[in-house]
Amino acid sequence: MGRDSGCVGIVGLGLIGGSIGLDLLSQGIEVQGLVHRSATAERAMHRGLVTAVSTDPSCLAHCDLVILALPIPALLHPPAELVAALPADAVVTDVASVKQPVLDTWNDRHPGFVASHPMAGTAQAGVEAGQRDLFQGRPWIATPDADTDPKALAVVEDLAGRLGSRWFTAAASQHDQAVAMISHMPVLVSAALLRAAGDERDPEIRALAQALASSGFADTSRVGGGNPDLGVAMASSNREAVLKALAAYRWSLEQLEDAVIKTNWDQLHKELSRTQALRPGFLNTEAEFNP
Amino acid sequence: MGRDSGCVGIVGLGLIGGSIGLDLLSQGIEVQGLVHRSATAERAMHRGLVTAVSTDPSCLAHCDLVILALPIPALLHPPAELVAALPADAVVTDVASVKQPVLDTWNDRHPGFVASHPMAGTAQAGVEAGQRDLFQGRPWIATPDADTDPKALAVVEDLAGRLGSRWFTAAASQHDQAVAMISHMPVLVSAALLRAAGDERDPEIRALAQALASSGFADTSRVGGGNPDLGVAMASSNREAVLKALAAYRWSLEQLEDAVIKTNWDQLHKELSRTQALRPGFLNTEAEFNP
Repeated sequence: MGRDSGCVGIVGLGLIGGSIGLDLLSQGIEVQGLVHRSATAERAMHRGLVTAVSTDPSCLAHCDLVILALPIPALLHPPAELVAALPADAVVTDVASVKQPVLDTWNDRHPGFVASHPMAGTAQAGVEAGQRDLFQGRPWIATPDADTDPKALAVVEDLAGRLGSRWFTAAASQHDQAVAMISHMPVLVSAALLRAAGDERDPEIRALAQALASSGFADTSRVGGGNPDLGVAMASSNREAVLKALAAYRWSLEQLEDAVIKTNWDQLHKELSRTQALRPGFLNTEAEFNP
Repeated sequence: MGRDSGCVGIVGLGLIGGSIGLDLLSQGIEVQGLVHRSATAERAMHRGLVTAVSTDPSCLAHCDLVILALPIPALLHPPAELVAALPADAVVTDVASVKQPVLDTWNDRHPGFVASHPMAGTAQAGVEAGQRDLFQGRPWIATPDADTDPKALAVVEDLAGRLGSRWFTAAASQHDQAVAMISHMPVLVSAALLRAAGDERDPEIRALAQALASSGFADTSRVGGGNPDLGVAMASSNREAVLKALAAYRWSLEQLEDAVIKTNWDQLHKELSRTQALRPGFLNTEAEFNP
């Protein structure tokens, strides 16, 4: 986007890649897609996600910005032919929810690499999932380090701005710990709830629990009933931060359980008043982060 | 409702009581409200929740069905003047989310008592919260025991049907264990998540977590950020079942954590595939329960 002649390349046209393509295309920007299968390429053209699409990495030759919108395992083990096809003077960024392992993988592979993470819903996946305005008002966080080219970082900030995102930067380790706490660890907390309810041995109580489960249970169990590939990718690529967040979580739960065991209802009320007061701070979509 | 001449009494006009009033009134049924404060009585009349309202329990004298839509602490410690004002030949029911303590309290206080629990949202409270069709398609579960009059039970089933609920019956102990698993315990699981995130000691990570928290965190933390009075009432009135459900929960979480500790990603994938498969069983609003 820095040069009028160049195009934006998007590698992978799932929810994130496809949504970026739709928004850029609507702004008159030339978008070159790269996908693995020709059936996906056909659907992408049919849906109008990109200007052109190919299964051959050489299609990226004229891009001055390439967005790697790949699943975490593919991003952390990129095919050599993809790395070789990235123009040396292009800016390259990614969209994964972990950042330190991505920097470790990509800093040595491309001089114009910028690690970034648009925070957007992941309930749907695949070439049919992309939608307009997915990033509008959502955070987009980059994690530059000593190897990051400031000019390349500015190109990614411009991209985030075009898509309507709110721009943040942080150290990769801080990003990964924060995301472990508010996204990766909660998947396990939520999954454990489904597991416990599903393990109820009394068949009448289990049937009753299923029949009576209301919107509260639906909400609390949503992320734990999501895509298992994604859950494993998060836990395995951000393992230390997830284990640290889980330890903090277990300790918190024990404090609440302790109040119940001791029938200390004043203490439980104090705890639940505090969590009630804490929640709005995690819902503030206009929150500013100034490290 | 069994007699054309009688009215339905509703004690407490919060979300549940007010919503019942609105629906019955729309069906041409005479509804007598009883509330604690005259300001509440004025708002109830202004909102059209009832035909008439009073702060004097003797207003219930002509009711043949009385619904105790009181908070759990008040229901379990009913004022003597309220008990005395209930007509001896009326059917009396409640709407609380615990049933054994309610039976223990009320079976000796009124011969026509039926313990029941309409499952409906509790995000809002107070005299402004009542809304039409709150119970449409939602479960309404009664927990009759040896002391329950079958004719009284039939009157409450008729009430649930008029409001569009799906009718279930179960033993009170089964109800309380099931509700602990899908409603009361999840409040603590969800609150512990907010507590852990709020306790993050690194201020930059905490600020980042707040800024990046997305719809997944909002959903998982919703019930834990709710009304602390309600959370304490659930835990204290259903303590044993909540502790049992919490123990099952902690064990489930440990199994997931163990897979992460051991980097056993096949096992974690198996677990998350199972929870993904389990969740729809808890969302089936048409589920049938036939004990």
